[in-house]
Amino acid sequence: ATPASAVPELAVIGGDGIGPEVTREALKVLAATIGNAFTTRNYQLGAEHWKATGEVLSDDTLAEISTADAIVLGAVGAAPGSAEVPSGLLERGLLLKLRFALDQGVNLRPSTWYPGTPTPLSEEVTGAGPIDFLVCREGTEGLYCGNGGVVRTGTPQEIATEVSINTAFGVERVVRDAFTRAAARRKHLTLVHKHNVLVNAGSLWRRVVDEVAADFPDVEHDYLHVDAVTIAMVREPQRFDVTVTDNLFGDIITDLAGAVTGGIGLAPSANINTSGEFPSMFEPVHGSAPDIAGTGKADPTAAISSMALLLDHLGRPADAERIRAAVSADIASRLGAPARTTGEIGDAIAALV
Amino acid sequence: ATPASAVPELAVIGGDGIGPEVTREALKVLAATIGNAFTTRNYQLGAEHWKATGEVLSDDTLAEISTADAIVLGAVGAAPGSAEVPSGLLERGLLLKLRFALDQGVNLRPSTWYPGTPTPLSEEVTGAGPIDFLVCREGTEGLYCGNGGVVRTGTPQEIATEVSINTAFGVERVVRDAFTRAAARRKHLTLVHKHNVLVNAGSLWRRVVDEVAADFPDVEHDYLHVDAVTIAMVREPQRFDVTVTDNLFGDIITDLAGAVTGGIGLAPSANINTSGEFPSMFEPVHGSAPDIAGTGKADPTAAISSMALLLDHLGRPADAERIRAAVSADIASRLGAPARTTGEIGDAIAALV
Ligand SMILES: CC(C)[C@H](C(=O)O)[C@@H](O)C(=O)O
Ligand SMILES: CC(C)[C@H](C(=O)O)[C@@H](O)C(=O)O
Repeated sequence: ATPASAVPELAVIGGDGIGPEVTREALKVLAATIGNAFTTRNYQLGAEHWKATGEVLSDDTLAEISTADAIVLGAVGAAPGSAEVPSGLLERGLLLKLRFALDQGVNLRPSTWYPGTPTPLSEEVTGAGPIDFLVCREGTEGLYCGNGGVVRTGTPQEIATEVSINTAFGVERVVRDAFTRAAARRKHLTLVHKHNVLVNAGSLWRRVVDEVAADFPDVEHDYLHVDAVTIAMVREPQRFDVTVTDNLFGDIITDLAGAVTGGIGLAPSANINTSGEFPSMFEPVHGSAPDIAGTGKADPTAAISSMALLLDHLGRPADAERIRAAVSADIASRLGAPARTTGEIGDAIAALV
Repeated sequence: ATPASAVPELAVIGGDGIGPEVTREALKVLAATIGNAFTTRNYQLGAEHWKATGEVLSDDTLAEISTADAIVLGAVGAAPGSAEVPSGLLERGLLLKLRFALDQGVNLRPSTWYPGTPTPLSEEVTGAGPIDFLVCREGTEGLYCGNGGVVRTGTPQEIATEVSINTAFGVERVVRDAFTRAAARRKHLTLVHKHNVLVNAGSLWRRVVDEVAADFPDVEHDYLHVDAVTIAMVREPQRFDVTVTDNLFGDIITDLAGAVTGGIGLAPSANINTSGEFPSMFEPVHGSAPDIAGTGKADPTAAISSMALLLDHLGRPADAERIRAAVSADIASRLGAPARTTGEIGDAIAALV
C-alpha cells in the first residue's frame, strides 16, 4: 500500500445499524473535498451478512480488504441485549479482527469542544479554556486479545477469566507515536493506567514511557490512574493534550471524552497501522445504535471527521483541514437551529468544504 | 463477630496522607452520634510503618484486625509518582489485602447529589431530577486478584499479563446483594460490563443477573457497556438506581460518580463481608492525596458519611440517618460560605448530629 502516491482505493464497510448511513455521508464529504481522487470497494459485512451466510469475515474477504489503501468503517454490532446475534460475535469477528489482523496498533481519538455545542459540563468548566486533546489508545493488545476461558460453565463452580496481554513491542509503538504527536501539539503527554493494582502491566507501561520520554526532551509527561482520569475529564478537561493508554482504558475514557465534548456523534477515530504494511481504518467512535437506524436521526459528523484523519494519513493535511473547518463551521451553525437529518448534515458539510 | 449485640470494637487504620486526618473527624462524628457505644484499637499502618519496619501488614496484625467488629480505614498509598514506595505496595499489601483476606465481596458506593453542591455538570443535567444511586462493586475478584506475570522484564521482548478472575460464587454474591438493595430502593438495577469484548466474564455476569432477577420479579434490570456508562453518568445520572459491576469497572465508574455528585471528598464506601464471618470495612472512596496532607484542606465528609454506612451495618439505621441528615445540612450550609478546615467541618457535622 502506497497511499500517498496513487489514487487511493478505499475498502468501505458500512456495517450495522446506523453504520451505513453515516458512512454514506462521510464518503459524500470526502468526494466533495478531493473529487474522484479515490476509488471505493464496498463490503457488505455485519449482522445481515452473518444471518444470511453464517460468516462474519472470511479469510478471503480479509485478504482482499488488506490490499486496500485504507478502510472506511461505519459501525459494527447488534443491540447490547439482542437475542439474535451472540454478544461479541460481530465486534470480535469483524471490528476487532480487522484491528488485530491489520495490526492497527495506534487508535487515535481526538476530542475538541466547539463553543456552543451542547455539553453536559457546566459553563464554569467549559469556560476555563479550550478543550482539545488526543487519546492514543493501544489497539492490538490488552484485554482485547480474546485470551481467557471458562471452566464449569453454568455451574455454581464456574470460573471465567480474561487475560490482558501487554508487550514491550506494542506498548513502545503506541507510546512513541503518542510522544511524536505530543511534540507536534502542546508538548504534554499523560500516561493513563492503574499501576497501583495492575502492577505487571503498569510497570511495563511506566518504564516504556520513561524510556521513550528521553527521546522527546521538550515533551513533559505525567501520569493519572484511570479512575482519576474520569474525574479530571469532567472537572478540568483542559489539562489534557495527548493521552496514551491501553486498549480497554482507552475505550472507556474516549466515550467519556466524546460525551463531554458534545456527544460521541462528533467523535472521530483512526486505527493506524504504523508500519504501513496493512491499511489503516477510519471510523466514528460511536456504535451501531440499532435503535435509531433508519430514522435519519444519526449524526454523521463523527464519520465525516474521520475522513479528515484519513486525509492526514494519506498525506493530504490541507484537505484534512478543509474538512475540519467545514465541520466546525457546521457545528457552529447548529446552535438554536432545528434538528436535521443524517443526509442534511452530510449535504451541509459537503457544501461547506 | 456479633456487631449488633455488644459494644462494637473498631479497628482503626488511618493510613497515609490525609487518611488519618479524615478518620479523626469520622470518629468524632461517630462519638457525637452514639456516644461511647463503641471502642477503638488503632493500627499504625501505611507508608511510615513500612519505611520503619519493612512490613506492610503482618499476618499477626491481620489476624488481630480480623477479630474486630468493623474496620474504619482512612486512605492508603503514596503519591502515584513516588520513588520512595514501590507502586502498588501499600495498595495491594494493605488495602486490597484487607478486602481480600476479609472476603469483603460487596463494595457499596452510594452517590447523592445535594442541590447547591458544586458539580462539573450543567444545570440542565442536574435539574432533570434527583441524583441518587448506589454502585455495588465486586470486591474480591476480577483484575484485582494480583494474578498475572512478566517474562523477559526490561527487554524488547517483555510480556506482562494481568488476569481477571470471575467466579459464579463471587458474582452471584454481589449480584444478589445488589438486587436486594434495589428492591428496597427504586427497584431498578443496571449491570455494567463489556460483554461484547470480555465474552467469558461477560457471559457469566449476564447469566447470573438473569438468574438472580427471577427471584426479584419487581426489580427491573437493564445493561450498559462500561464505556456507555461514562456517557450516561454525565448526561443522565438520574437513570441509575442500583448498579452492579466488577472490581475494576466499579473502581472507574465510582470515581466518575463521585466527581459528578460533588467531588470524591463526599463519596463514602463500605466493603461488606456478607457472611459476617469477618469484619466489614468503611472508608472514603478518595485516596491518600499526599499533596494536601497536613494542610487542613482535606474534606472529611466522605469519611464521615462512611460512618453512616457503618451504623447501617451495625443495625442502627436511625443513627445512620442522623449522620446523613447532619451531613446533608452541613453541605447545604456550604454554599457561598468560606472554606473550612478538615477539623472545622468535622466539628460542624458533629454539632449537627
Ligand atoms: C464495539 C466495540 C468492540 C468497540 C471497542 O470496545 O473497541 C467500540 O466500543 C469502540 O470504542 O470502538
Ligand atoms: C487505592 C486503590 C487500590 C483503590 C482501588 O482501586 O480499589 C481505590 O482507588 C478505591 O477505589 O478504593
